[in-house]
Amino acid sequence: MTGLVTLVGAGPGDAGLLTLRGLRALQAADVIVADRLGARQVLDQLAAEGTRLSAEIVDVGKLPGYHRVPQDDINEMLVRLARQGKRVVRLKGGDPFIFGRGREEQLFCEEHGVAAEVVPGVTSAISVPAVAGIPLTHRGIAASFTIVSAHEQIERVAGGREHTVVLLMGVNTLAHSAHVLAAGSRGADCPVAIIEDGYGERQRVTIGTLADIAALAAARRVRSPAVVVVGDVVLLSPDAAAVPTGSTNLLAAA
Amino acid sequence: MTGLVTLVGAGPGDAGLLTLRGLRALQAADVIVADRLGARQVLDQLAAEGTRLSAEIVDVGKLPGYHRVPQDDINEMLVRLARQGKRVVRLKGGDPFIFGRGREEQLFCEEHGVAAEVVPGVTSAISVPAVAGIPLTHRGIAASFTIVSAHEQIERVAGGREHTVVLLMGVNTLAHSAHVLAAGSRGADCPVAIIEDGYGERQRVTIGTLADIAALAAARRVRSPAVVVVGDVVLLSPDAAAVPTGSTNLLAAA
Repeated sequence: MTGLVTLVGAGPGDAGLLTLRGLRALQAADVIVADRLGARQVLDQLAAEGTRLSAEIVDVGKLPGYHRVPQDDINEMLVRLARQGKRVVRLKGGDPFIFGRGREEQLFCEEHGVAAEVVPGVTSAISVPAVAGIPLTHRGIAASFTIVSAHEQIERVAGGREHTVVLLMGVNTLAHSAHVLAAGSRGADCPVAIIEDGYGERQRVTIGTLADIAALAAARRVRSPAVVVVGDVVLLSPDAAAVPTGSTNLLAAA
Repeated sequence: MTGLVTLVGAGPGDAGLLTLRGLRALQAADVIVADRLGARQVLDQLAAEGTRLSAEIVDVGKLPGYHRVPQDDINEMLVRLARQGKRVVRLKGGDPFIFGRGREEQLFCEEHGVAAEVVPGVTSAISVPAVAGIPLTHRGIAASFTIVSAHEQIERVAGGREHTVVLLMGVNTLAHSAHVLAAGSRGADCPVAIIEDGYGERQRVTIGTLADIAALAAARRVRSPAVVVVGDVVLLSPDAAAVPTGSTNLLAAA
């Protein structure tokens, strides 16, 4: 093996949620290949806080559904930079192994003789609901959860409202997803929360039900990035007071 | 509100995976109320690395299925300490909102006039499979995953082997879980990995299928803590070479 690439999870876009090992890797790096969502905000915040990074930063501009630099080119770039003897950090939003194609990049490096290690990160799927006071599990309410990229087969997600569902990249397909989930055992009055820009300045929580969430989102002009949570755990949010559907009874019973 | 409790996710038991905000909270704390699994290892590692913490440490000894200090007593302790004007950190393994009863503790504090903030952590459910080279999602192999506490209703977990399942606290009930999942659409030859002690000295990966994993685990004396991953993503592990079931074709097709 020649050279080393470190794949670092940047977390949900808040430098305080970067890991200690992730920070050390950034400080030791010669070059940082960064996605836009999550990763760039963290680098900007570190700079604003006075944390000096000497690395060159390459912005590969990866946003959901919009890859400025094709994945193949990113893979090639990582290998080329590492072979030049540079200490390379690949900085990815959230966790590298959750919808991040991190294992693809790691395998590509290794197949080309470059060692690649992973530093896990705080995933948006869990940490963004937390800012709205929503845990994905809660004793007496939910003991399991499914995380799904919303443009995949939402039809296959089973369970009732005691099984939490998190939709990532789910804003554009929200009407379809809500329709499909309402037709299952959750029912149309199952609570739903949308948390936009979880750790950013546009942070906003929208709460409704599977029946009305798409209309609410349209009326409030909900935008990506956003995390959608479906299930009774939504009622644990302080923002859920406006949801009439039996929330008081449910919480009293929990 | 009088006083402040900060619920910090310690991550999977490796101080390098603590977040920057989590470390700052520990350094500012007067008292740290720590679980045993994950949290204590992190405090011990920080001490070994020379990171000075001036806080008193209260070990509430929480292990899966064995709570030395009952939850009600932990709740009362947090409120009592905060009301004494102490800066209290509640340090929990993994992420506080994933099977951690973090929202319960937060709600209890708030209902008793004590502010409680959450610092998310790196969850073992994602970061422990990563040490075995197993991503929970991977293009062409899996685009969704379910995380379930294994003593809950495993019967309700749907999907085929392209839907990854992670069982937490699953060692003791592994034979039952494997039997139930094999009876579903995954089939008995669906790959399974067990990762013991993900970031500790006893780290070990055991790979089999739903048909043989319980026998393998018994023969190898697999012990908690361990994370169990079920699905075709297991074949992405370098340790999966021993699994004969079509892995080459699958990976070539991905």
